[in-house]
Amino acid sequence: MTVVAPDAERSAIGHAITTFTPLRVKEYWRGRTLMGYASSGTPADCVKLGVGTLFDRRPDLVVSGINLGSNTATNVIYSGTVSAATEARILGIPSIAVSLATVTDPQWAYAATIGRRVAAQVLERGLPPKVLLNVNVPNLPRAEIRGIRVTRQGDSLYEEGYELRRDPRGQPYYWLVGTYRLSDEDEETDAWALANGYVSVTPITFDLTAHEQREALAAWRLRA
Amino acid sequence: MTVVAPDAERSAIGHAITTFTPLRVKEYWRGRTLMGYASSGTPADCVKLGVGTLFDRRPDLVVSGINLGSNTATNVIYSGTVSAATEARILGIPSIAVSLATVTDPQWAYAATIGRRVAAQVLERGLPPKVLLNVNVPNLPRAEIRGIRVTRQGDSLYEEGYELRRDPRGQPYYWLVGTYRLSDEDEETDAWALANGYVSVTPITFDLTAHEQREALAAWRLRA
Repeated sequence: MTVVAPDAERSAIGHAITTFTPLRVKEYWRGRTLMGYASSGTPADCVKLGVGTLFDRRPDLVVSGINLGSNTATNVIYSGTVSAATEARILGIPSIAVSLATVTDPQWAYAATIGRRVAAQVLERGLPPKVLLNVNVPNLPRAEIRGIRVTRQGDSLYEEGYELRRDPRGQPYYWLVGTYRLSDEDEETDAWALANGYVSVTPITFDLTAHEQREALAAWRLRA
Repeated sequence: MTVVAPDAERSAIGHAITTFTPLRVKEYWRGRTLMGYASSGTPADCVKLGVGTLFDRRPDLVVSGINLGSNTATNVIYSGTVSAATEARILGIPSIAVSLATVTDPQWAYAATIGRRVAAQVLERGLPPKVLLNVNVPNLPRAEIRGIRVTRQGDSLYEEGYELRRDPRGQPYYWLVGTYRLSDEDEETDAWALANGYVSVTPITFDLTAHEQREALAAWRLRA
């Protein structure tokens, strides 16, 4: 296993890629063993860097995470963790994203166990083209985990706005504030599974086409 | 119509959102008319800012673009232009992204005409939940446009790596280099339409679930 990670937190970075500026890379050694690389880029950059340049051979699998905080519902769109796994899948490498549903007092060990189990299944079975797995683990003692569910991405929204403040020079600036709200309580969803003590595994894709809408749209009066 | 735009180019920024730092906003006036706002944020930030704070009323439609450069095939994932339209749709507002397929000598007028026509249809007909339109226009004289096609997102890849360089202090840095290659020549795709003189309209979604994979995955030996 080789690690490439951003050199600082990159929350809500989504699938940003660094092209106009160069990246710095720092190696981490423990004695004579290379433990991994820290990059000044985004999570998706880390995957590109590892696969394209830093690694001697192409990985069999990319595991992104474990992220501190869940990546479910509409939030998946903003997730650097999921985007790194997506980038690997774009490069043709099977991949999973693993997130732990807490921001305080994380219990990593069980999430790591789940990550390893799902990874083993992916290595054994492979994944269809353009498909990867988004895994979310409740931050509960093992005994309180109720099972594992194959889910769909649910819906959520932020009720939000920007706070207008003044900097020390009296100039205005805006800061995002808001409340996160689940808007889809269906039992098939990723967020429902997590909230009810289940590990959630969602097959996701980077084919964004709304295929079922193509026929209806073709009937519109669109003219060139 | 009110404009909110990033204050500089934000290529390959994807769906990044700014939460840890504040945003600056600059108003642009022509005489006594407010022409629009420039923000230090990402395209998706601009939509959040406009809808949540800057505008007096909620927009009926958000048009993102016109982007200088196409947003087709796998590139859609990295597109700030598409992400801004996606952000609007997440907020429940019908939206379209419009891109012009060139980086040199852009002929904006026809792309603007197409954008206006598609926008009018969206206002008239509405869009299904979670669905928006990704519009790409060839940079051709009107007479050479062959028509309009409702497409699916095709596949493409970068054959890429990083160039290792040394800064003036002798320290190493990496810069992304690569060649873009379409890997899906199907006539149903966005990139095929563009390359063959058609305007491409792709219905896209931010539901990333690979729904057709859920059943197969449920048969895996996944255990908690």
